[in-house]
Amino acid sequence: MYPALINFSRIKTVSLLVLGCVFLSFTLFTSCQQDEEDIARPPVTPHPLFEVLPAEAEDPEYNIRTPERIDLGHKLFFEPKLSRSGVISCNTCHVVGAAGVDHRAQAIGEGARVGPRNSPTVFNAAFLKAQFWDGRAATLEEQAKGPIQAHVEMDLTPEEAMERLRRTGYEPYFAAAFPEYDEPFTFDNLAKALAAFQRTLVTPGSRFDHYLEGNHDILTEDELAGMLLFQENGCASCHHGPLLGGNMFSEFSHIAGDDIGREAVTGYEGDRFVFRVAPLRNVEKTFPYFHDGSAETLEDAVSIMGSAQLGRTFNDDEVYLIVSFLKTLTGEFPMVPHPALPRTRVD
Amino acid sequence: MYPALINFSRIKTVSLLVLGCVFLSFTLFTSCQQDEEDIARPPVTPHPLFEVLPAEAEDPEYNIRTPERIDLGHKLFFEPKLSRSGVISCNTCHVVGAAGVDHRAQAIGEGARVGPRNSPTVFNAAFLKAQFWDGRAATLEEQAKGPIQAHVEMDLTPEEAMERLRRTGYEPYFAAAFPEYDEPFTFDNLAKALAAFQRTLVTPGSRFDHYLEGNHDILTEDELAGMLLFQENGCASCHHGPLLGGNMFSEFSHIAGDDIGREAVTGYEGDRFVFRVAPLRNVEKTFPYFHDGSAETLEDAVSIMGSAQLGRTFNDDEVYLIVSFLKTLTGEFPMVPHPALPRTRVD
Repeated sequence: MYPALINFSRIKTVSLLVLGCVFLSFTLFTSCQQDEEDIARPPVTPHPLFEVLPAEAEDPEYNIRTPERIDLGHKLFFEPKLSRSGVISCNTCHVVGAAGVDHRAQAIGEGARVGPRNSPTVFNAAFLKAQFWDGRAATLEEQAKGPIQAHVEMDLTPEEAMERLRRTGYEPYFAAAFPEYDEPFTFDNLAKALAAFQRTLVTPGSRFDHYLEGNHDILTEDELAGMLLFQENGCASCHHGPLLGGNMFSEFSHIAGDDIGREAVTGYEGDRFVFRVAPLRNVEKTFPYFHDGSAETLEDAVSIMGSAQLGRTFNDDEVYLIVSFLKTLTGEFPMVPHPALPRTRVD
Repeated sequence: MYPALINFSRIKTVSLLVLGCVFLSFTLFTSCQQDEEDIARPPVTPHPLFEVLPAEAEDPEYNIRTPERIDLGHKLFFEPKLSRSGVISCNTCHVVGAAGVDHRAQAIGEGARVGPRNSPTVFNAAFLKAQFWDGRAATLEEQAKGPIQAHVEMDLTPEEAMERLRRTGYEPYFAAAFPEYDEPFTFDNLAKALAAFQRTLVTPGSRFDHYLEGNHDILTEDELAGMLLFQENGCASCHHGPLLGGNMFSEFSHIAGDDIGREAVTGYEGDRFVFRVAPLRNVEKTFPYFHDGSAETLEDAVSIMGSAQLGRTFNDDEVYLIVSFLKTLTGEFPMVPHPALPRTRVD
């Protein structure tokens, strides 16, 4: 009796166990499938040319960063003696505490002269494929030499700049930053040091980057809808890569004016009104927009871009959604100390 | 026999012990006396009115610092929108990375206008008994309102300044910094926030301070000789207190010119060419010197002060020694980050 009962009981127990296992396996399998779907299919599939912003910029082999070189560049970036009046430094137009820009339509420089174009942000400039709105410098090293000499910006010759730096005690800092050079104290090395410092000015960690990395809950429905609009309407055809821009050139003839853009660099008529596509990282914070700063708000910029570049008329809702998406491109800005400037009298 | 021997032996042992103790006590007493002499008599007895620079400035009861208030003042100190051109901030003339000065003879301000006087350092200004070269403001709170409005400095009315701040998104920062106010967004509170930030800009820990605190080995023979000359020739009669200056007024008529000094403040003819005695903390780094910046080097300044104020002709050795002493007044400068500036468009 007992054995039979026990046997029966055992069979029941085993059956229940088996059933339980099957159910559990099914549940796990199902949820596992859902997880795989989540990973494989985000709410909006990002444009294939979008890239996560690297947390670190790479150095070119001719300018490997050292703490001394970065420190020198940091000092030079804040050095007002690099302008004729002694009031304007790189940081005057590329304010590290204000998204790397001056928030003016067009830059103001020496003698209160107004430059022809809007100051681009210094943040993430390390990742640009070409520097300046017309791409006339290929590297940060080349770029750094421009504003110091430009009449409307800092207005010094290389010789004047170096003599000023010598007289205020910069030579030992150049020696420490460029120990492998027989003559470290040169304008070329000034540019290298500035570039080395600027390669530290990157803003990773935006919500957009987290989304690209697989955190699909981080963007709101509006932001995702904006991303979809951004992609489906063709914005992403030019605004892609790690900066969503800054890696190609495009004609932008919406703005009437004397600024012929890249033609002035190449001498090629086909480059008339061609400009570097604006990078969109931290774009929420870098107003006003366009090479002449003529668009005051991001809404205006999106709307004009739609009609001028894509032949589309975005309605207010669409503009709102695209702007919502663009605001997810704001990253984490590094804390930049005010450097200690050399102030030793050297005769 | 044995007991006698033993007794004798014991007596000898006790005698030796007593002698040893006496010798040891004498030795200890002597060295102890030397220590006391060291403490009581440093190589040079500091002037009785010299004071160690406090590591912390005290707040007036009407402006108690909070992190929010300091943060707002920090932003305002670096805010170029507080000048008409939008290029000049407090930090343009009082550079936190350059001993708190601009190293010009006379300050440069809006429209490249040159002010009549040399920019005083912002470091340790919290300890000044009166602000400006002519002492026309009693407090940092009063002082802060001056340069913003001065035609040769930042050239804005209070209304213009506040409207600019409102439009770039400062109102929430004022609300956080002044939560006890019904109307926190005022020019008075702007000045309070600037003062709160400036009270953090102190440079304790100079070698001179360590000497005052009893570390008598920290100054070299030259520096001590300079300190003695500084005291014996009467420099310390005006240059004393925690800043070695900045706490009294004195006539200084060596400089020919239109600047009548404190008479312009008091209207009292006896105050003609009376100026606030210059504070000497970090004086090595705050060149050029005097209210018009006419002394380029510390050597020049010491030499002129000797003849003009004390009727003494210091020879080169004396000047060298006094300058050596003055260099011991250089303290430790705090690291000041570039603040994040509010850049929100408010219509």
